[in-house]
Amino acid sequence: MAMVTGAEYLKRIAQLESTIWIDGEFVKGKSTEHPAFKAVLEAKASLYDMVLDDDYADILQASDKNANFSFEIPRTKADLTKRRKATQLWAQSTLGVLGRSPEYVNTMIAIMAGAKDFFAEDGKEYGESIQSIYERAVKNDYTFTHTFVNPSISRKPFYPDGESVEQPVAAKIIEENEKGVVIDGARLLATQGGITDELLVLPSAAFVDSDYLFGCTVPSDTEGLLFLSRPSFGKETQFDYPLSATLEEGDAVVVFDHVFVPWERVFMYRNEWLMSQLFARTGIEAFLLYQAANRQIVKTEWLLGVAQALVDTLNIGQHTHVQGKVSEVIVALEAMRGFVYSAETQAQANEYEIMVPKLEPLKASACYFQMTYARLIEIIQLLGASHFISAPSKKDFASPIAGRLERFMRGEYTSAKEKTKLLRLARDLSISEFGSRQMLYERYFFGDPVRVASGLYHFADCQKQKYVEWVQTFLKKMD
Amino acid sequence: MAMVTGAEYLKRIAQLESTIWIDGEFVKGKSTEHPAFKAVLEAKASLYDMVLDDDYADILQASDKNANFSFEIPRTKADLTKRRKATQLWAQSTLGVLGRSPEYVNTMIAIMAGAKDFFAEDGKEYGESIQSIYERAVKNDYTFTHTFVNPSISRKPFYPDGESVEQPVAAKIIEENEKGVVIDGARLLATQGGITDELLVLPSAAFVDSDYLFGCTVPSDTEGLLFLSRPSFGKETQFDYPLSATLEEGDAVVVFDHVFVPWERVFMYRNEWLMSQLFARTGIEAFLLYQAANRQIVKTEWLLGVAQALVDTLNIGQHTHVQGKVSEVIVALEAMRGFVYSAETQAQANEYEIMVPKLEPLKASACYFQMTYARLIEIIQLLGASHFISAPSKKDFASPIAGRLERFMRGEYTSAKEKTKLLRLARDLSISEFGSRQMLYERYFFGDPVRVASGLYHFADCQKQKYVEWVQTFLKKMD
Amino acid sequence: MAMVTGAEYLKRIAQLESTIWIDGEFVKGKSTEHPAFKAVLEAKASLYDMVLDDDYADILQASDKNANFSFEIPRTKADLTKRRKATQLWAQSTLGVLGRSPEYVNTMIAIMAGAKDFFAEDGKEYGESIQSIYERAVKNDYTFTHTFVNPSISRKPFYPDGESVEQPVAAKIIEENEKGVVIDGARLLATQGGITDELLVLPSAAFVDSDYLFGCTVPSDTEGLLFLSRPSFGKETQFDYPLSATLEEGDAVVVFDHVFVPWERVFMYRNEWLMSQLFARTGIEAFLLYQAANRQIVKTEWLLGVAQALVDTLNIGQHTHVQGKVSEVIVALEAMRGFVYSAETQAQANEYEIMVPKLEPLKASACYFQMTYARLIEIIQLLGASHFISAPSKKDFASPIAGRLERFMRGEYTSAKEKTKLLRLARDLSISEFGSRQMLYERYFFGDPVRVASGLYHFADCQKQKYVEWVQTFLKKMD
Amino acid sequence: MAMVTGAEYLKRIAQLESTIWIDGEFVKGKSTEHPAFKAVLEAKASLYDMVLDDDYADILQASDKNANFSFEIPRTKADLTKRRKATQLWAQSTLGVLGRSPEYVNTMIAIMAGAKDFFAEDGKEYGESIQSIYERAVKNDYTFTHTFVNPSISRKPFYPDGESVEQPVAAKIIEENEKGVVIDGARLLATQGGITDELLVLPSAAFVDSDYLFGCTVPSDTEGLLFLSRPSFGKETQFDYPLSATLEEGDAVVVFDHVFVPWERVFMYRNEWLMSQLFARTGIEAFLLYQAANRQIVKTEWLLGVAQALVDTLNIGQHTHVQGKVSEVIVALEAMRGFVYSAETQAQANEYEIMVPKLEPLKASACYFQMTYARLIEIIQLLGASHFISAPSKKDFASPIAGRLERFMRGEYTSAKEKTKLLRLARDLSISEFGSRQMLYERYFFGDPVRVASGLYHFADCQKQKYVEWVQTFLKKMD
Repeated sequence: MAMVTGAEYLKRIAQLESTIWIDGEFVKGKSTEHPAFKAVLEAKASLYDMVLDDDYADILQASDKNANFSFEIPRTKADLTKRRKATQLWAQSTLGVLGRSPEYVNTMIAIMAGAKDFFAEDGKEYGESIQSIYERAVKNDYTFTHTFVNPSISRKPFYPDGESVEQPVAAKIIEENEKGVVIDGARLLATQGGITDELLVLPSAAFVDSDYLFGCTVPSDTEGLLFLSRPSFGKETQFDYPLSATLEEGDAVVVFDHVFVPWERVFMYRNEWLMSQLFARTGIEAFLLYQAANRQIVKTEWLLGVAQALVDTLNIGQHTHVQGKVSEVIVALEAMRGFVYSAETQAQANEYEIMVPKLEPLKASACYFQMTYARLIEIIQLLGASHFISAPSKKDFASPIAGRLERFMRGEYTSAKEKTKLLRLARDLSISEFGSRQMLYERYFFGDPVRVASGLYHFADCQKQKYVEWVQTFLKKMD
Repeated sequence: MAMVTGAEYLKRIAQLESTIWIDGEFVKGKSTEHPAFKAVLEAKASLYDMVLDDDYADILQASDKNANFSFEIPRTKADLTKRRKATQLWAQSTLGVLGRSPEYVNTMIAIMAGAKDFFAEDGKEYGESIQSIYERAVKNDYTFTHTFVNPSISRKPFYPDGESVEQPVAAKIIEENEKGVVIDGARLLATQGGITDELLVLPSAAFVDSDYLFGCTVPSDTEGLLFLSRPSFGKETQFDYPLSATLEEGDAVVVFDHVFVPWERVFMYRNEWLMSQLFARTGIEAFLLYQAANRQIVKTEWLLGVAQALVDTLNIGQHTHVQGKVSEVIVALEAMRGFVYSAETQAQANEYEIMVPKLEPLKASACYFQMTYARLIEIIQLLGASHFISAPSKKDFASPIAGRLERFMRGEYTSAKEKTKLLRLARDLSISEFGSRQMLYERYFFGDPVRVASGLYHFADCQKQKYVEWVQTFLKKMD
Repeated sequence: MAMVTGAEYLKRIAQLESTIWIDGEFVKGKSTEHPAFKAVLEAKASLYDMVLDDDYADILQASDKNANFSFEIPRTKADLTKRRKATQLWAQSTLGVLGRSPEYVNTMIAIMAGAKDFFAEDGKEYGESIQSIYERAVKNDYTFTHTFVNPSISRKPFYPDGESVEQPVAAKIIEENEKGVVIDGARLLATQGGITDELLVLPSAAFVDSDYLFGCTVPSDTEGLLFLSRPSFGKETQFDYPLSATLEEGDAVVVFDHVFVPWERVFMYRNEWLMSQLFARTGIEAFLLYQAANRQIVKTEWLLGVAQALVDTLNIGQHTHVQGKVSEVIVALEAMRGFVYSAETQAQANEYEIMVPKLEPLKASACYFQMTYARLIEIIQLLGASHFISAPSKKDFASPIAGRLERFMRGEYTSAKEKTKLLRLARDLSISEFGSRQMLYERYFFGDPVRVASGLYHFADCQKQKYVEWVQTFLKKMD
Repeated sequence: MAMVTGAEYLKRIAQLESTIWIDGEFVKGKSTEHPAFKAVLEAKASLYDMVLDDDYADILQASDKNANFSFEIPRTKADLTKRRKATQLWAQSTLGVLGRSPEYVNTMIAIMAGAKDFFAEDGKEYGESIQSIYERAVKNDYTFTHTFVNPSISRKPFYPDGESVEQPVAAKIIEENEKGVVIDGARLLATQGGITDELLVLPSAAFVDSDYLFGCTVPSDTEGLLFLSRPSFGKETQFDYPLSATLEEGDAVVVFDHVFVPWERVFMYRNEWLMSQLFARTGIEAFLLYQAANRQIVKTEWLLGVAQALVDTLNIGQHTHVQGKVSEVIVALEAMRGFVYSAETQAQANEYEIMVPKLEPLKASACYFQMTYARLIEIIQLLGASHFISAPSKKDFASPIAGRLERFMRGEYTSAKEKTKLLRLARDLSISEFGSRQMLYERYFFGDPVRVASGLYHFADCQKQKYVEWVQTFLKKMD
């Protein structure tokens, strides 16, 4: 098996019996037919079909032709280059919008399996767990979502103190026996929660009570597992909301109601030391950032296309301030590309012989894009301006007033309908709830920007020290 | 009559037979019962009731107790102070959100009537027209919307060139006879289009073909007048969208399909010179800006309340960067208040003995708020962060999962439901389509910010010259 | 006596025997003839002459004609208005650049004397001290500088802990007897240190060891008092550095080397409670901010003049981005004016019957100007651009190459020499050490901007609470 | 010969008899001993010595060991990588501050020689000219400066119109004969004008009167050539101004007073078409940007060192806002590195078999650094804050007050003297005239930022078009 068609994928997801609640209602029947999930699942199905398409197979299939690229563990810089192209190709198909393109967590699974000796440091059974999780994923061509953020009471994550035994808030181990462990409590904001094959669970931080420290995967329809999805931002009409109608993916709180996880699915367990090293030593931090940066490059290309299409359609390209705004998008695009080239060129094999992209530029890219994306969206808003307020709907163009719309709202070189279609895309990207969620998603993708910046400050200690010494050496000569 | 109750107002509006199209459908029956208009009309009705409420009468009624304050022509600084308080009081009732609070255009009508001699310079009939328009408005306690922006083909307004005689785009005079004139073409973006008693029409610029130069009012249900409304951003559930559900007001393209306007409704006609002086000499520019600034003060107070409520609920007030963000709102609020106090203190009577607030600080306030409001909204977004993504709905709290929401999503000191209610308000203010339209509305309220800034640059020529001379005098002494 | 001429003032300062060190040298002889101090003292002398000038006397003299305006305690709003005009008039003479215009500390002295009952709460002798300090100041028409910042070891002020008894760092009481107290240690950054008649000393914070809590004045040439001045940013040639050459005022570390202060000069002593209330209850915080805001208004007017003169001379006014930059200066100017009008209009008499400007807008103005001034200076830099690099000197124009400079560096409508003179002024304002110190001075005038913003956040608690309640009331109705 | 020692280089420059005027005085005698030029020439001499130093030879010498790296024409990506390392190594020695490191123009000469067929399109003599210029430069190990900006009357460059025949402003051809051409007029702002071996002259734009279109080199001491240098920003004391005292390089207006240029030094002549293609087709635009980006990387590393040294010395690293500011420097550094890696990885050989770095990321880097450098300097200012105002001088530490400075101004872990040394470096970088000139230099390095952004907008037309088509294809499917 190993590589499935989109149809096979959809069939499998349709058979999942996940417990999902959305907008006060329990999702009965197939998620593939539910209005909140149908579109995104079809979008993902098309990614599966691309893998089997001869036009893309060289890029999208692993070298051994037994899996899609996301399951391949990179060993050389050429592997990274291939992976970059594949990531960007899939992202193009979804406009860089999907937070849980199948590869995002697949890559984590693959890299962790590649670094299985890391987990085995705590007992070889943990190394075997991650390896078998990986093999099963490859064999079945699975998709995952993941969750590691604890519920916040205030914005700070809610930690153990004060939880009653009966009612933990953050998901924790409440029982352990020969066969496995029992988890109770919740984790936040699993994108596509309930509509992926499995769920990857990781701790949110290393230095907490060990009851919170476990890494495992569980099928989405495991008994006791509930997905409390936020209301859908999906829309029906593609003309009016082309993105909301096709790429809304949902987010859910994941509730573990005494969920039993067998040992063979547990690959990390009550080990602060391993947890504190997980992201850096295995390489998954670099790979997650690398995937994200490549996706964001495609998203920025898409944004550049929308921006320039607005400029052309509204015929405002002669203004230097408009040119300046589009130039900002171009600079952001080249900066993101640069971070990725920098990470690739400086990649090095880690102790598990995985070729890991350089972390420094990728951490900087995360910081940069968090700061920049909101400005890119603001540029779209500034280009569209009040056109975004007045944009008519598909129904308007199907009504008796269509003729008047054509007369009064046409573009210099386009019909009112074509112009409106573009405006509605641009506003869906920048001012609809879907677009606003995208903005928040990018802004908080790697965490609170203030903390991400502080993290970068500390991460760069070594580099900073080097330059401080340079300054000190220089100053010694000045007198 | 002169001051009507909210119920009387609603009854009158219900009887209007305006031709409104919205989302492809013709609005049949009473607008007061239409889902797109019901809420805003009720909000406005409550403003009428306030005027007759003893608690507010001193502030909200004109000195002669025969009209609401908006129709009173200010003659003293005390009149301005009273007007400020009244404007802010009405704005509080609608959170500073309504673009067409009844007073906005009423004030224009009143000030123009006060300056009727200005219009009479071109013939005394024009002075009589504006006077009788005013008197009728006072007598009936009317509301207006207004329109002066031409349709844009590109973003630049579309001017005469190239229009065929049969199919003008921008509304223009196509016929003139003893009884009046016939108008054909369109104007953009009348807020509350079709659901006010009358429509005030002004030219969009002074130096254009005189066919485009006319000022008049027409009843909203005049024959041939069509309002093509954009799709409504209204929502049904107040819990989920407290602003969208109560204060969405709509915007419309106004189409004049051979609309006949009798001479007694025309107060300006084919006169470039008058048009070029209209805003400055009558004082209406200052009064429009003054009303807007007072409304925006209230809106900023509301924003400050929402910001601080988020800070309290999410328990993040200890972070200096959070304090800094809230401080930005406070600075903006005091700045806006300052512009208004400045304008009042420096007010001067014009040639028509109208006490006009100083224009300089008000023009600066427009420029300032355009630049600042988007940042204020960004601050709300940054405070709410990913909480805005995951917020549950009213239906969620009415469903079997309510208990889990309370367990996992409560605040430090508030229930999940109370916390969610606030989050949904804050997100309706900052990321819903309603909130996004508000952001664009403020950003473009006085026109493209680039042009508004250029306008301020030129407007300040005299003041700048004074300081240039100071510099030159100083330089003469330096050697 | 009471009001002296500039010449009398200079003569008195020349007789001061302050101990000043600058750039490694002890200042011997008259400070009025020292290159580092001559210019600023002459600039101040001219302020004294203005007071006696019939053209300005109405504004610059107190109502009783016995002192300059700065010593008058405002009792009515009209007094405030007069004070505003006087402050701005003096500031115009020094371009808003002087941090220690005579009135700055004079005003503190006057207001504290007006609130002498405040100090008398701790013993009537303290009330008498401040009153006699004030009377002596009025009688002699004194100028002061003041100091309250402790030396920092790191940027945080250095507090008692760890100081040895023999070598205190921050100035503290080390002895006390019948006649007075002995102070040892240092305070930071007294502007014009050593060249004012007296020095006002206040604690830097309320809640510290009481050894640090004392308020007093001492003559600048008190025995044991040393002023360690930073190197001068002054320049000789007015053509090349018109501001550095005329308005550089110096800053100094003040060292108290066992300085004896008699009781009659001590008006606050070891009293945490009074110190914590000093700024708010007496009104001095509001008056200091009011003076600063009025000075900054004039400085911004000057900046606007320089900006527009650059635009005219370089002939770049047709670019919208240039217009936009100048508009930012105009907005800042109107905002600052607004804060002041707002503070005046809302002024209220305090418990000492002093008419105190409203603190809220003034605290916001401090926050605003800190954030804005650096941008205004950046605008000057962006307008001058590379012209600031290449500007010739006075000597160049007196040399054989003058003709070539005229040929190659002239402006569109100005000679090379006139153009250069303006460019050199603009660069002295924005990129010389003098200009850079001004930029830092404004940025840190009221303290670290991050802390000032946090201070505003807390100060506004009451106002914020009011709006939070509004939000809560609104939310109760939403369901 | 080919590679000279620093001493040989200095000796050669000392023998130059350039005509330089500075601050109204003619530079008599050796420039190497003139206070305005001595330091920078010694800094450059040390670069020459580095080339011959065994530790650096592999990187700094060309592969054939006959010239320094700057004269080597890159043929492979490995050549580019070597060049990057060499550029950064030299830049480290001068802190990335020198605008005219020898390699900057050397590289242009080398690349133009590599593309000599380009010039030969207009006549083979032009190809021969550039080749012989190159060979002579290599043989003698020359340094150049260059000039191409016309004098501006307003900020727009001054073009032919209206110049009288006798008195051209912009340098132009006024005579032509068998042996060569005669040039009269001026060009702006040659860095190190007069103290390099030769001067490279290029037109400032392609589409102008052909009298202005010529490319040539001339020795700096050519008859009729005058350098009107701006006043020096140099300082004597390294302790007080470590950068101004060691790296000030000067800028000059270059006057051609009937300068004769023989044909063998002219490589481009009155050819609009070639001029319009020069930068793109030969590759020099990419190489200039590549050199600049590499230099700016080193400068940013230096800035990061200074920033962190300030943080350590002032002990302020615990504040998140301080961490955030330093993180901005890190992000900028990684972004600049990314642009360079991106340009290298995507490099392609051009029609002259020169391996040219990809232009897109380099043009974006220019735009990015222009926008970013001023912020980096602002960060230094914000970290140093008022410490920059009060910093003592070397003389202070050599005077009797040194003990008091140590007592009152020491750092938490450093002596007052060490702390001051760092502060004086940081302020020399950020607020001295030297530092301010650096800020303007980077901001205008590639021209007015508004125009550079517009240039990028147009340059990216092809890429933008691709993404617009993607958008259009997507929209076709939406209905």
